[in-house]
Amino acid sequence: MLEAAMRSSRFTKQESELIADHLLDCELRGITMGGVSRAISVIERYGKQSENRTPMIISRETAFSASIEGDETIGYLVGHKATEMALEKAKETGMGMVGAHGAIFSGMLSYYAEMVTAEGLVCFSTSSTGLMVAPEGGTEARFGTNPICMGFPSAGDPIIWDIGTSGMMLADAVLAKKLNQPLPDGVAYDVEGARTTDPAAALEGAFRVWGGHKGSGLALSVQLMGMMVGANAMPDRYGDIGFFLMAIDPKLFSDPAIFYAEVENYAEAIRRTRPEIAERPLRLPFDRSRAHRKATLEAGVIEVPEEVLTELHRLIG
Amino acid sequence: MLEAAMRSSRFTKQESELIADHLLDCELRGITMGGVSRAISVIERYGKQSENRTPMIISRETAFSASIEGDETIGYLVGHKATEMALEKAKETGMGMVGAHGAIFSGMLSYYAEMVTAEGLVCFSTSSTGLMVAPEGGTEARFGTNPICMGFPSAGDPIIWDIGTSGMMLADAVLAKKLNQPLPDGVAYDVEGARTTDPAAALEGAFRVWGGHKGSGLALSVQLMGMMVGANAMPDRYGDIGFFLMAIDPKLFSDPAIFYAEVENYAEAIRRTRPEIAERPLRLPFDRSRAHRKATLEAGVIEVPEEVLTELHRLIG
Repeated sequence: MLEAAMRSSRFTKQESELIADHLLDCELRGITMGGVSRAISVIERYGKQSENRTPMIISRETAFSASIEGDETIGYLVGHKATEMALEKAKETGMGMVGAHGAIFSGMLSYYAEMVTAEGLVCFSTSSTGLMVAPEGGTEARFGTNPICMGFPSAGDPIIWDIGTSGMMLADAVLAKKLNQPLPDGVAYDVEGARTTDPAAALEGAFRVWGGHKGSGLALSVQLMGMMVGANAMPDRYGDIGFFLMAIDPKLFSDPAIFYAEVENYAEAIRRTRPEIAERPLRLPFDRSRAHRKATLEAGVIEVPEEVLTELHRLIG
Repeated sequence: MLEAAMRSSRFTKQESELIADHLLDCELRGITMGGVSRAISVIERYGKQSENRTPMIISRETAFSASIEGDETIGYLVGHKATEMALEKAKETGMGMVGAHGAIFSGMLSYYAEMVTAEGLVCFSTSSTGLMVAPEGGTEARFGTNPICMGFPSAGDPIIWDIGTSGMMLADAVLAKKLNQPLPDGVAYDVEGARTTDPAAALEGAFRVWGGHKGSGLALSVQLMGMMVGANAMPDRYGDIGFFLMAIDPKLFSDPAIFYAEVENYAEAIRRTRPEIAERPLRLPFDRSRAHRKATLEAGVIEVPEEVLTELHRLIG
């Protein structure tokens, strides 16, 4: 059905499959706001597209790098293309780095990191987005929600760290607004710069950055990486993602087989770390997401709210 | 005098100059624990070295990458060599990435980032170090203090973000121990895993990681980058730094002149962000360090404790 939904916006069959796969993976991992319901936002944004859309343009390219102009293409496709190009180049040269700007919706960076680690490569990626988040000490948006992700292949499961640098997830604020619930204290500012717990006011204003001054510097760095790949410094709220992804073959630096084995051993050493609270053993960053996906697949059922399905069917027509 | 101190450990003239410059820059920026007093630790560690030391070995190399085996060389020299190699390669190809392992003392990543941004290039670097920091939720050390740094060139001053991923700076704990002062609550564990405010017990145990689960994933990623470049996963406390540095020419992705101008404008937009507290205008990450260095240079005087000078003179002999 997700594929049919994308087809209704005149994405090609292959494009529709790619987008549907990404949205489904969100849903399987329990990130429902980026899952099936996101298909509605995509159709609302793209409507009935022209049959003759401009393809993405590769504006700069070397043996190990490329720069993609997204030209308002949907980010799932741009991110996928960028990752595929980085992987191809890494297979040729040992490393590939691809930047893309001008796309809409970035998708989950961990999705691309899984593609990269599945090939035995290390992944580093960032994505700057429209302004929503205030630097620490300020009350006006200067950053996007700016995710950053690193992924490491292993003889076992890959280790993937994928975080947003906003103090609160945008999706959670949108949900709170829908449910008419207040936000926690101290996570948002209204347009005048006063602290607010009203999600509607926060969505007009700015969210607080994660991690104080240190986290603010990280969010700033992600924004600057986006500028390096050609995105505007201060894009309006819903446009101009600055996406950067790098795939590194560990063979450039050490013996890959040894590295994969050591990553797995080290992951186990982390999980076996003496916990502060005996009943709470340690997990690695991606463990919960992976377990959620596995459980959902085994159960064989995704629960989607009735109104989301109704709306999707209406839009597909 | 710093140079003479290094010469006393039989570093060559050029090596001594490089190390002295790094230590002096620490001191100028107000990071006294890494400054003049550090020279004492270096001499204590290296003593009278052999005249015929093994040079660093370049074990793997491509047009854009290199892997250096530090073989217990002092990290200031390894970091400098890695940065120079990355810069050379970036001038040839547009990008250079160099890994190094087995060094001792990593120095400040921002020092290398200033070298990179001075050439108009973007810098990303990480350094894993000996185990001292517990993953979030755990009470045993699995990470080093693991700094990470990103640097961006600009038409004005470069923007440099350089943080440690430990909740507390090791140097501050060492100082607290010397001064017989307690640590803040909740930043450290003793060897049994109990929370402690005793700096001596903390130095035997583990420090808490910065930034909760998100920060813990960042510290983990830095450790894994170190493993990728050949460092041990769990090196003992004082050995085997895993250093990674990358220099990227923005021309791979966009027009450098436009990028430099936009970074400067954006820096100004951050500084002019409406502050939460009117008397506290926003700063960028490196602003304070740069201002401190400028003020110290203008004053023309560095204050070094009498006992540090006495000890240094004794060691130089």
